[in-house]
Amino acid sequence: MPAMTLSAADISAALAAIAGGDNVVSDTAKMGAFLNEPRKRFHKTAVAVVTPPDVAAVQAVLRWANDAGVGIIPQGGNTGLVGAQVPLHGTEVILSLARLDRIRSVDTAAGVMTAEAGVILENAHRAAEAGGMMFPLWLASQGSARIGGVLSSNAGGVNVLAYGNARELTMGVEAVLADGRLYQGLNALKKDNTGYDLKDLLVGAEGTLGIITAASLKLYPLPEDYETAIVNIASPEAALDLFQLMRQRAGSRLNAFELIPWIGLDIQMRHGMLDADPTASASPWYALIELTRMAGTAAGALQAALEAAFEAALISDAVVAESLADRTRMWAFREQMSECQSREGPSIKHDVSVPIAAVPALITRGTAAAEKLVPGIRPVPFGHIGDGNIHFNFSMPVGADAKAFMAQFDEVLHEAIYEVVLDLGGSVSAEHGIGQLKTELLQRVKDPVALEMMRAIKLALDPNGILNPGKMLG
Amino acid sequence: MPAMTLSAADISAALAAIAGGDNVVSDTAKMGAFLNEPRKRFHKTAVAVVTPPDVAAVQAVLRWANDAGVGIIPQGGNTGLVGAQVPLHGTEVILSLARLDRIRSVDTAAGVMTAEAGVILENAHRAAEAGGMMFPLWLASQGSARIGGVLSSNAGGVNVLAYGNARELTMGVEAVLADGRLYQGLNALKKDNTGYDLKDLLVGAEGTLGIITAASLKLYPLPEDYETAIVNIASPEAALDLFQLMRQRAGSRLNAFELIPWIGLDIQMRHGMLDADPTASASPWYALIELTRMAGTAAGALQAALEAAFEAALISDAVVAESLADRTRMWAFREQMSECQSREGPSIKHDVSVPIAAVPALITRGTAAAEKLVPGIRPVPFGHIGDGNIHFNFSMPVGADAKAFMAQFDEVLHEAIYEVVLDLGGSVSAEHGIGQLKTELLQRVKDPVALEMMRAIKLALDPNGILNPGKMLG
Repeated sequence: MPAMTLSAADISAALAAIAGGDNVVSDTAKMGAFLNEPRKRFHKTAVAVVTPPDVAAVQAVLRWANDAGVGIIPQGGNTGLVGAQVPLHGTEVILSLARLDRIRSVDTAAGVMTAEAGVILENAHRAAEAGGMMFPLWLASQGSARIGGVLSSNAGGVNVLAYGNARELTMGVEAVLADGRLYQGLNALKKDNTGYDLKDLLVGAEGTLGIITAASLKLYPLPEDYETAIVNIASPEAALDLFQLMRQRAGSRLNAFELIPWIGLDIQMRHGMLDADPTASASPWYALIELTRMAGTAAGALQAALEAAFEAALISDAVVAESLADRTRMWAFREQMSECQSREGPSIKHDVSVPIAAVPALITRGTAAAEKLVPGIRPVPFGHIGDGNIHFNFSMPVGADAKAFMAQFDEVLHEAIYEVVLDLGGSVSAEHGIGQLKTELLQRVKDPVALEMMRAIKLALDPNGILNPGKMLG
Repeated sequence: MPAMTLSAADISAALAAIAGGDNVVSDTAKMGAFLNEPRKRFHKTAVAVVTPPDVAAVQAVLRWANDAGVGIIPQGGNTGLVGAQVPLHGTEVILSLARLDRIRSVDTAAGVMTAEAGVILENAHRAAEAGGMMFPLWLASQGSARIGGVLSSNAGGVNVLAYGNARELTMGVEAVLADGRLYQGLNALKKDNTGYDLKDLLVGAEGTLGIITAASLKLYPLPEDYETAIVNIASPEAALDLFQLMRQRAGSRLNAFELIPWIGLDIQMRHGMLDADPTASASPWYALIELTRMAGTAAGALQAALEAAFEAALISDAVVAESLADRTRMWAFREQMSECQSREGPSIKHDVSVPIAAVPALITRGTAAAEKLVPGIRPVPFGHIGDGNIHFNFSMPVGADAKAFMAQFDEVLHEAIYEVVLDLGGSVSAEHGIGQLKTELLQRVKDPVALEMMRAIKLALDPNGILNPGKMLG
């Protein structure tokens, strides 16, 4: 980013002249909602927050910022977990997409919805369902996450297995480039081989190459029903064998396959987070399994597959949801896995992925490394085993001092886990991205040629370095 | 591309020194197999063909070419239809990937295969099947197309509906950059949010940003069986309604949904291209429909769905395959659609896509435009209606003069069809790419900001312009 020459007051005045005084905030207290991110790890302030009322105003802000050398941080619902959407230097302007919140169109026949960047994910779900379709990207934060952020972070979630992540669910994007030009890449085409894949370059770029202002999103037919179960399994190895069996029998009907350790049930039951036990009986590990059932397809495929799994000794007990309430409770059990850890003090978290065959090794070796470092530490590995993506979290030992635990072990445990992940050919950020949390880590672990290519592309598309400066590439 | 300063002899000598004399051909007759492409539309020669024995030799050739300013054209199976893989200027060197033909690994547990760029697509199929899995990308040219070309052209095919195109089937790539650096992006991760999506930038770039030397490819469980039918439909509108019904009932089990006009059956039967009529009875339009059936799933879903379609008056007759021979014949009928046209003289072809709801309008309006231009012209629109991708071909009128037909109408008919396509929000190249055939067209129809972004990226990654010079961006 070029050296700042404008005062904070100059910047606010310029933004007000471009986007309207009502759309600019520079009072620190009023900026709170934009600065306080979920993890409370990043504490820099911003010069101002601008909330442009339309795409033209986004263009005008960037045109000005590019000339003035002012860093712009695009922000959606401020739910990101790696600090991409909050300041790094304290001299940046946050550009909120919240007012670009229109669903421009829902075309059920074409299977596409065009939503602006500020549309809240849950509202996108509702708009699709109103047309008898679904937009199959579900996140714990869907009540506040906005489409622009969901795409810029290439969000994943629990149904990547069947439908892919944000990138795979996006057909095209509209984006404002660093100098204010508008890239018009919205489309409703399943196939279009006319040039480089700019859409996928902008998706997942964390706002460092352009600011997504709208996207055309894939819609899918609503299944008539779901078949959902929680099964008891002896180990992650058995979970993997069971996953292969389910995939063989259900193919793309397999909607979710989530691994959950016993400690997750224990914590949630002890803290009254579930109205009833969603499992059949006590087990060291559980898997939440779900199949979609389309209209005209006979029910019972999950039950039949589970019988085969019993015969193969892959599961020891199971409960199949018999009501919507059962299914809702099973999913609550899964979705509260992250939140429940906070009831037991701080935890040290890793969002990692490995080739799926390596998940058992990841859990075994990662657990051994952690227990060697911190006797009594409580591993809570859970998540998307079918994607090889484990949220490998560790709760502090019972009775430990919270502050001392974090101060002493946060860094070293990260190092130990990432070492195992990299040794298994995995990724140090499966879903959450790089932001400002993992920029140094990325420099250390990424293919150096990939980093050179990324820097060359960044320089080509944002020569003045005003787009989310310092994020991702450092 | 910088001005050429080396003589042809100098170039051949340099290549021989780098890659071994046995791996360099500069005799025009011996270069024939590399120069003669399927459409016989492009006739420039090359200075030489080099066939490096390994990745290191590819790197060395590019390092030299980048310094010497010699254009390099990567080539796989030479099956491309837009001239991307053959010379444009006559001063280029063709770099054949044919000797990089190793399957490096097949990991069925992880669902990934690593194949070098020179592996023939059919051999990739066989390697997957040997492991009890499938690599679901099928093309008419699969007996000679090679993985590097399949990926560089982002090939599609008949199963994109269920499994996606080459881009969606690729987990990572290894590629040599213009200056010889090796980008090591192979991986077996379903989720990896550590930086820009370089994989998707290289896939579909037609060798203008780097030369793919290997790829990690997604494998899927083999279905236990397929349910396949050819149904009689009254119109493309009915086909679309039927497609929606099938998708509602079969979801992602719907493996293929291909539209075929009556003329295709007529030509194939008259020329003895089918051993028996694969259809139930005469109909203006047919659809070939296929569902996958996984192990443990009851048979009959297609039959049940077709009964619902009869009741809804969407189909008037149908035949469901009862044997492998039936299924093979049905697919031959579909796959011979392109070839059969040549039995009736030349045809003018368009590989286009529109939002799927607009397919009927595309066919109606395109047919009207063509018939206005050329009375008696025979429209042969067929293909992937579920992807909105129609191969909108036109055979010359019965008894017309072949040469005069092409000379008079090739250009103007293209213009007329592309006008309809663009008006419907479609793409002028759904599957086949840009190459050298459609560079001028791309300049006219693509979003200008997209073209600027593409040029900036090209300049950033290939500053000397040596990679497939003049292709795609002109």
